[in-house]
Amino acid sequence: MSSNLRFGELSVSIFGESHGAGIGVVIDGLPGGKPIDFDKILEFMARRAPKKDGISTRRNEKDLPEILSGVFNGKTTGTPLSAVIRNTDQHSADYGNLSTVARPGHADYTGAVRYHYANDPRGGGHFSGRLTAPLVFAGAVCGQLLEEYGVFSGAHILGIGSVSDDRFDPVFLSRETLDEIKEKDFPLLNSDREKEMKAIVWEASAELDSVGGKIECAVIGLKPGIGSPMFDGLENRIAQAVFGVPAIKGLEFGAGFCFSEMRGSEANDRFTTDGETIRTETNHNGGILGGISSGMPILFTAAVKPTPSIAQPQKTVDYIKKENTVLEIKGRHDACIVPRAVPCIEAAANIAVLSYLL
Amino acid sequence: MSSNLRFGELSVSIFGESHGAGIGVVIDGLPGGKPIDFDKILEFMARRAPKKDGISTRRNEKDLPEILSGVFNGKTTGTPLSAVIRNTDQHSADYGNLSTVARPGHADYTGAVRYHYANDPRGGGHFSGRLTAPLVFAGAVCGQLLEEYGVFSGAHILGIGSVSDDRFDPVFLSRETLDEIKEKDFPLLNSDREKEMKAIVWEASAELDSVGGKIECAVIGLKPGIGSPMFDGLENRIAQAVFGVPAIKGLEFGAGFCFSEMRGSEANDRFTTDGETIRTETNHNGGILGGISSGMPILFTAAVKPTPSIAQPQKTVDYIKKENTVLEIKGRHDACIVPRAVPCIEAAANIAVLSYLL
Amino acid sequence: MSSNLRFGELSVSIFGESHGAGIGVVIDGLPGGKPIDFDKILEFMARRAPKKDGISTRRNEKDLPEILSGVFNGKTTGTPLSAVIRNTDQHSADYGNLSTVARPGHADYTGAVRYHYANDPRGGGHFSGRLTAPLVFAGAVCGQLLEEYGVFSGAHILGIGSVSDDRFDPVFLSRETLDEIKEKDFPLLNSDREKEMKAIVWEASAELDSVGGKIECAVIGLKPGIGSPMFDGLENRIAQAVFGVPAIKGLEFGAGFCFSEMRGSEANDRFTTDGETIRTETNHNGGILGGISSGMPILFTAAVKPTPSIAQPQKTVDYIKKENTVLEIKGRHDACIVPRAVPCIEAAANIAVLSYLL
Amino acid sequence: MSSNLRFGELSVSIFGESHGAGIGVVIDGLPGGKPIDFDKILEFMARRAPKKDGISTRRNEKDLPEILSGVFNGKTTGTPLSAVIRNTDQHSADYGNLSTVARPGHADYTGAVRYHYANDPRGGGHFSGRLTAPLVFAGAVCGQLLEEYGVFSGAHILGIGSVSDDRFDPVFLSRETLDEIKEKDFPLLNSDREKEMKAIVWEASAELDSVGGKIECAVIGLKPGIGSPMFDGLENRIAQAVFGVPAIKGLEFGAGFCFSEMRGSEANDRFTTDGETIRTETNHNGGILGGISSGMPILFTAAVKPTPSIAQPQKTVDYIKKENTVLEIKGRHDACIVPRAVPCIEAAANIAVLSYLL
Repeated sequence: MSSNLRFGELSVSIFGESHGAGIGVVIDGLPGGKPIDFDKILEFMARRAPKKDGISTRRNEKDLPEILSGVFNGKTTGTPLSAVIRNTDQHSADYGNLSTVARPGHADYTGAVRYHYANDPRGGGHFSGRLTAPLVFAGAVCGQLLEEYGVFSGAHILGIGSVSDDRFDPVFLSRETLDEIKEKDFPLLNSDREKEMKAIVWEASAELDSVGGKIECAVIGLKPGIGSPMFDGLENRIAQAVFGVPAIKGLEFGAGFCFSEMRGSEANDRFTTDGETIRTETNHNGGILGGISSGMPILFTAAVKPTPSIAQPQKTVDYIKKENTVLEIKGRHDACIVPRAVPCIEAAANIAVLSYLL
Repeated sequence: MSSNLRFGELSVSIFGESHGAGIGVVIDGLPGGKPIDFDKILEFMARRAPKKDGISTRRNEKDLPEILSGVFNGKTTGTPLSAVIRNTDQHSADYGNLSTVARPGHADYTGAVRYHYANDPRGGGHFSGRLTAPLVFAGAVCGQLLEEYGVFSGAHILGIGSVSDDRFDPVFLSRETLDEIKEKDFPLLNSDREKEMKAIVWEASAELDSVGGKIECAVIGLKPGIGSPMFDGLENRIAQAVFGVPAIKGLEFGAGFCFSEMRGSEANDRFTTDGETIRTETNHNGGILGGISSGMPILFTAAVKPTPSIAQPQKTVDYIKKENTVLEIKGRHDACIVPRAVPCIEAAANIAVLSYLL
Repeated sequence: MSSNLRFGELSVSIFGESHGAGIGVVIDGLPGGKPIDFDKILEFMARRAPKKDGISTRRNEKDLPEILSGVFNGKTTGTPLSAVIRNTDQHSADYGNLSTVARPGHADYTGAVRYHYANDPRGGGHFSGRLTAPLVFAGAVCGQLLEEYGVFSGAHILGIGSVSDDRFDPVFLSRETLDEIKEKDFPLLNSDREKEMKAIVWEASAELDSVGGKIECAVIGLKPGIGSPMFDGLENRIAQAVFGVPAIKGLEFGAGFCFSEMRGSEANDRFTTDGETIRTETNHNGGILGGISSGMPILFTAAVKPTPSIAQPQKTVDYIKKENTVLEIKGRHDACIVPRAVPCIEAAANIAVLSYLL
Repeated sequence: MSSNLRFGELSVSIFGESHGAGIGVVIDGLPGGKPIDFDKILEFMARRAPKKDGISTRRNEKDLPEILSGVFNGKTTGTPLSAVIRNTDQHSADYGNLSTVARPGHADYTGAVRYHYANDPRGGGHFSGRLTAPLVFAGAVCGQLLEEYGVFSGAHILGIGSVSDDRFDPVFLSRETLDEIKEKDFPLLNSDREKEMKAIVWEASAELDSVGGKIECAVIGLKPGIGSPMFDGLENRIAQAVFGVPAIKGLEFGAGFCFSEMRGSEANDRFTTDGETIRTETNHNGGILGGISSGMPILFTAAVKPTPSIAQPQKTVDYIKKENTVLEIKGRHDACIVPRAVPCIEAAANIAVLSYLL
């Protein structure tokens, strides 16, 4: 049940292969009667779609989801909400020579062993980044429900290569900031960095290479007391969902790895109150203490590895013949998937956080 | 079901509160007939026990687990294996004044809201680091089963404050290295750093402060093809288990956050073969591609925040009275929990990895 | 997560509403490389399709499933296998006047309350018997995999009204018997009863009424030692799946309710051996002891309530207006759903049993 | 994870073997702050304890549970509630000769194969009826929480051998009736049948035999709209829990198997309203439509097989030697476990129903 995420009463089941008939998702456990705005789903998904900026692939993915069930008269029925995206623009010939040559950094070899050499290898099959389209669909739906509970999320590119964006204000992050960033084609808090970041991507692209980055995500409006200790807390669920996005290799909450060089006196977020509400003065813990929300913004950062599909010749093996060989990947590939991964991370967060509110 | 971890057929259910009658664990789904060496379990648990080195708390936790079921004639029965550790050395008076004053960085406030102010606040209750004792018990049991499958794990302090240990050899890591490190009271690969690291802790301790760090963990011997894509892969399960250890705020696999500044040509681990086995020349991906083992060592690093229990006066609130106040924490607290967290991280890895092999 | 069945590593997620765009299923956790014969799936599904025998509805359900993923070159890929059946023959006008008048015996009222009056009421929505089509698809797939393990299943009408079929031979049931019964339009072991049974249905139909029945199901070839005690045994999983078929209100294993009038000396199945294999002389326990297979045929019987959709005027309420009213159900309805429920029960058994073999 | 029941956010994990050190349960997912009356738990458990009426075993099970966690100041903490019952009265010598001779009707053989001959065979090990003690503990706790929600349950012997008790009033069942029956040592609605029923048991006992029976269980006060369609409805969860009680071989809801001989016009429960509340005039569906509560009493009946432990010599096999042999069971055994199974069934219902209300 690799692709079925089950959090309490919520189940999200993703299916499909890159070059099969279609991909999709079943979301089971949503409440009935919640309004669903299909256009807003499309807007969310469009943020994941490739741009014409020389950074993302030229594959023309229309990625139009069709809702098959679970929405009636514009509202959730409460029974499983399913959507299918048909695969129309397939150039599997591009991938023809990859069949048993393992692309370095990809799951070709591990997937083949896992599935007894029977999995669909075309375009990465079920391991393809294309499978994030139904994830983003599910995240868009969950995001609309979160708004019903007064909870809002957003994410931005925190870094590409050596260039960094600013961070979210950990204490006073506003909905306006989250809304604004969703409007941007290249989601940065500080768009002054855009030029420099894109230059890094173009440079890598020109050298037939790719580049990694980091994404920061936030969820605001979550009341204190949401989550659980030990294995089912906010960190556990967010982690289980976020590591479902291909290419994510690291995750930290709040100060994360910086904690390792901090003192307790600095790391501890002091509580303060105006007699009514309780908040912390800083938010090094990313809004989570003991797996449970503190009422402060939930903040986490994910590390994105450089897309392994690069056009340079690479030494590798044919895993059936067990021979060393050199691979030249043809076809259309992003030199940097970080911008397109931003809504994926946000989607994962939406699913994880919503699961506690049902 | 905060404290019930369920991976496929394996269920690990942890219970207890720091100052209640006892703590323990139920491990359900183990195969029958596997030898269990109780002394080796105690050795594993001893690595988590406080040392007399001025670093960890002076609380005299005997932490002797009693196995109530699941082991018969020295072998697993296959039915649930349970163990209880009685709480004998309780000084709850030490914690008397904490009842409704939120310790900064702790789950006092979030736990209270989560459980309608009914949770046991003494010593952190179920949120206490003491709950890692049954986790370590479970990890010790799972580790013994892993050895039956030829799989071995180990972990070490990667850093405390600004001082770092060496890293595991990502390609040629041997069982000997893992065994050696388990023998050390202060688990470092390079024990030359011990003095410097301990100095950092003592300095923090002297200033009534605490300090954070990082732990690196490895699992070797895992064949390629273990795991799953998307939500149930090695990264997902390890993350769900590791974030169950209190104070863990970050997790990265292989190069992790360093990927964000890497090029694909550098990050991609090239496959190579001698005609029989396939391996990679480097192991930036930490032995995991697409959520599935590649046959290389599984490598991950966890960030540990400084223990929030510090003796300095701290500004905080009484969350019932909703008043600002100043807290002085009495009692016995580690200035650095990183050394004791090492076997906890290893235990979490053991549980997650074993779950695929059943 | 009402419609997501999760047994160990296997997840089956059903979605759709009777009069929505489509219905379908995602099967996650199948092994890779297992042959799938699409024509045999269609044959299995055809057994559920309405017949032109005056017993089942005249709705022309083509119910042609399209496999969207999980099958490549005629074999399972190991990644999620999904199928969609589009709803083409919808006469929702027939159901127009039902919207807030509760059909007695149906889930109209309970579903409306459950989903805050937002669920799709047309044709029963997600509660429709039509949702058994994807269940049967999943059962057909699982049945093909079971055959790979040497396990075969089958089911027949055990009774309709007061007329009974013979029972499966509890000890020496053969694959031939199971195969033969699948060929029959009206699945009885003893087809001499067919005329009498059909007369009961026609009589009920003529009186604008419906009639219930019983179905017996068997699984053979299962080795001893499959299953688990307590909550995850064969009885538990079969029950969880079988009660997923609408209209099933009872389930018994082996002698079932007859046990209540038996003595232990009669009920106990005596073991016997020829020095090699062990079997029991009788099989009152339906092949299951302590939740675990004994190597004898798995045998269970399910009770099917009369379809609640009858054309007689019925006293009921409008659950919005909270007024008493009289309902006359129009549209196409089976007078007896037992024959069509036979493959549904078999499908549920296939899913439950296969889940242990993965 | 045979003995871990997981319903949404609720997890119940049972452990122990009949003749091991102890048995117990972990209940994870309860809300915090709910009062727990320990004496009432003991009363509930006493209903399962053997009576001195010649019907149940003479084993002196004190079965005093010790709560180790999850209750603080008389209320649930919200974190896992655990209890342990130590095994003190063990006469394992009584069972000495059973080790590899399969008791007919027991799980000795199937359990041995399942667990590679490593499970604890003494007294049935984890398959022992003694494991219902922690189940009853959990059911008692869940029952107390149900009362907080205005929900009450109860069960009685519906039949032993050929003698039947009356049935619960399916429409107007009151809390008084449920309370009264809990006070009775021999739980019958119509105690006039007690003498006749006990005679049946004594007769069987005198003939070194045992006898089966039926138990009816009811849950009242559940509002309409609780449950789910398909795989996670009231019938599914109740079935999964009830089949966790050893010796249960059948389960029916409402009219159950009687539906098979009913017409729809008779089976359909007509809705009626007084303008405020909606109810049905009859309750053949046992308060469940489409897996969801209708607001009427939840009613189900379970079939209990005769206890397989009888003192008559029985033909069976030694499953290691693979030889036919004759077994004479020594030791203490109930001639009829139906009375003691009554609170077990009620406990299973409590757990299943409560899981929806959390």
